[in-house]
Amino acid sequence: MPIELPLGFQAAGVSCHIKGDPKKLDLALVVTDRPAVAAGVYTQNLICAAPVVIDRARTPSDSIRAIVANSGVANACTGTQGLTDARRMTHCVAEAIGAKEDQVLVLSTGVIGAMLPMVKIEAGIAAACAKLGRSSADLLSAARGMMTTDTVPKISERRLELEGHAVRVTGFCKGAAMIGPNMATMLGIVLTDASMAVPEAQLALVEAVDHSFHCISVEGHTSTNDSVLLLANGAAMADRSLGYTAKSKLHLAIRAVCEDLARAIVDDGEGTTHSISIEVRGCRNTEDAQRIARTIANSPLVKTAIAGADPNWGRILSAAGYSGVSFEPHQVRLELGGILLYDEGAPVPFDAAAVSQSIASQRNVDIVLTVGMGDAAAQFWTTDLTTEYVRLNAEYHT
Amino acid sequence: MPIELPLGFQAAGVSCHIKGDPKKLDLALVVTDRPAVAAGVYTQNLICAAPVVIDRARTPSDSIRAIVANSGVANACTGTQGLTDARRMTHCVAEAIGAKEDQVLVLSTGVIGAMLPMVKIEAGIAAACAKLGRSSADLLSAARGMMTTDTVPKISERRLELEGHAVRVTGFCKGAAMIGPNMATMLGIVLTDASMAVPEAQLALVEAVDHSFHCISVEGHTSTNDSVLLLANGAAMADRSLGYTAKSKLHLAIRAVCEDLARAIVDDGEGTTHSISIEVRGCRNTEDAQRIARTIANSPLVKTAIAGADPNWGRILSAAGYSGVSFEPHQVRLELGGILLYDEGAPVPFDAAAVSQSIASQRNVDIVLTVGMGDAAAQFWTTDLTTEYVRLNAEYHT
Repeated sequence: MPIELPLGFQAAGVSCHIKGDPKKLDLALVVTDRPAVAAGVYTQNLICAAPVVIDRARTPSDSIRAIVANSGVANACTGTQGLTDARRMTHCVAEAIGAKEDQVLVLSTGVIGAMLPMVKIEAGIAAACAKLGRSSADLLSAARGMMTTDTVPKISERRLELEGHAVRVTGFCKGAAMIGPNMATMLGIVLTDASMAVPEAQLALVEAVDHSFHCISVEGHTSTNDSVLLLANGAAMADRSLGYTAKSKLHLAIRAVCEDLARAIVDDGEGTTHSISIEVRGCRNTEDAQRIARTIANSPLVKTAIAGADPNWGRILSAAGYSGVSFEPHQVRLELGGILLYDEGAPVPFDAAAVSQSIASQRNVDIVLTVGMGDAAAQFWTTDLTTEYVRLNAEYHT
Repeated sequence: MPIELPLGFQAAGVSCHIKGDPKKLDLALVVTDRPAVAAGVYTQNLICAAPVVIDRARTPSDSIRAIVANSGVANACTGTQGLTDARRMTHCVAEAIGAKEDQVLVLSTGVIGAMLPMVKIEAGIAAACAKLGRSSADLLSAARGMMTTDTVPKISERRLELEGHAVRVTGFCKGAAMIGPNMATMLGIVLTDASMAVPEAQLALVEAVDHSFHCISVEGHTSTNDSVLLLANGAAMADRSLGYTAKSKLHLAIRAVCEDLARAIVDDGEGTTHSISIEVRGCRNTEDAQRIARTIANSPLVKTAIAGADPNWGRILSAAGYSGVSFEPHQVRLELGGILLYDEGAPVPFDAAAVSQSIASQRNVDIVLTVGMGDAAAQFWTTDLTTEYVRLNAEYHT
């Protein structure tokens, strides 16, 4: 069953030759027929791109009409001209669809330090407005329009019934292991035809991102452009507001879509051979668990060990040990690929060859670390570190 | 001029077949004729090895007589038996040289999770005690006895005149890019025949390590065994205490020896093609500068860019941006290999091919980032990230 747009949304993706190759789409547009509640979560990087500055000022909002996104040029480190260009993109869309400039949000991804080719982009916006449609093909084109080093478009949806209304949450994103100058930029758009209040939408998105896009790491870089936007237009329920239980179900659906998309980014790590899931249990609180999981995920030693199918528990434990979280080493337990390697603070005998073969034969590797300090847990996803990954990253030239 | 031991010190390095290859030395011993003031700085990793536990309890001290070190087995994650074995090593040395057990310090490096082969080690300690000598060859043997993946022994000295006394500071260390299970362990021993008070020695060592071993990063891992020990036996000045100026000169000499050794570790990064020096200037305080420098040094994206001779200023700036230190992006200035790439918050035109060729042709690459917030600066050293490095790390099997 193809993934569809929620009610009241249209989408388009076109090529406006930013990337040079006319077969590659490089501009995406999403329009909602009725003004939508909008929330945004953005990069924490101090060096942030012009579209991030614009969107930060315009979200949360109760009257967003469109999101325009381009790939190929990130509009980052571009000074005042960059801000003017980002605003101009939203202005062009607003004029075409009969909205105000500040009802349009903007995303960019691609080369840093280059100015947007505005003549091409304005032509692209006009073409996208003319092509807007409600089909799953239109959604797919929009997803493709945001791609840079992605090898596949990433789309996910959840359909649910909330107080008698058939509701849809549809998301798409771009992001893959960083190759070239795009800094592993992650752009995500989540659309729903449920109705949400402004603070509710912002909170739900923050929570969803905390459990999804914030729990993945390909190389530990936070890009200048990272953004996730949520639009809720209420088209499936004529703006009726939902009760507590229905709201909770909706928020979980938004989170599930974000988790799907985040894992799809990890799976699309170019030059990688394994996706690694790291679950840390038995912590005092979620922050501790996330900190340990993130430290393991960012360790090049752990990542190269998995690439080499090496059940090297020492590297995993050592990373946990320098995470800055205090725990009792004598209570530590570690499983790799379902096999117990370390228990009660000491290594246990295991068949290293068998574990290695099991890692080598699987795309997904699970690390489960329990530290015995409490009940909190967290999960993190990353990729292995292969020679191919380094080759791709080293051979790219600015 | 060969590097010599300071007065009153003897050293030896022997093979006791821990590593299997009898040509590889794997046990080192340093003995001081007279009890020495001793200071220690140890790993911050929560998972720390047995010898670290023992030495932490025995330093600072005013009566250390010897340091015994083995390579091949790290005696980490070895529980109670590991502590017993580490203590036993110090006991054997103490008996042989006529000292008390707690006057001996112990270091180990190598495989994690394996028990020390105590029969071999006790034989090795006996052999080392019989071989102790004062020559530069004896010093070199001791340095070799600590090596694991190091391709060269690392030794440095400073000779200085303090209030009419000829004083020597001699240091040696092991450490290289982590290959295998040794977790990039860094062991360092600094010896001086100057006299120092106990708190003075500890402070001087902490400061020296802060500006040297704490400013290098090969893969961001803090090992379970990292230790730096300082012995000051006063043999060159019959325990006379020094005035303020002479003390300062001595402390700078200790720091200089540590810096030499730290840089030697970076230069010995197996599978690397570039040493990278990162200088961050214009910060509010040294901590901020170190934090930015460390974040850049630990970025796989920066490290692969240098491996590929790519003047990718975007990756460097982005790493600075997510370091957590607040600065004004519009005042940032970046030089790579002496060439200005970014100034006043914007990229400047440069000949990318020429910069790339310059990086490719040099072993050392300098990154200088100025952030315009104050006068504090810090320097950090790391290596590039090459396919060869990943291959070595992935192919190693526990």
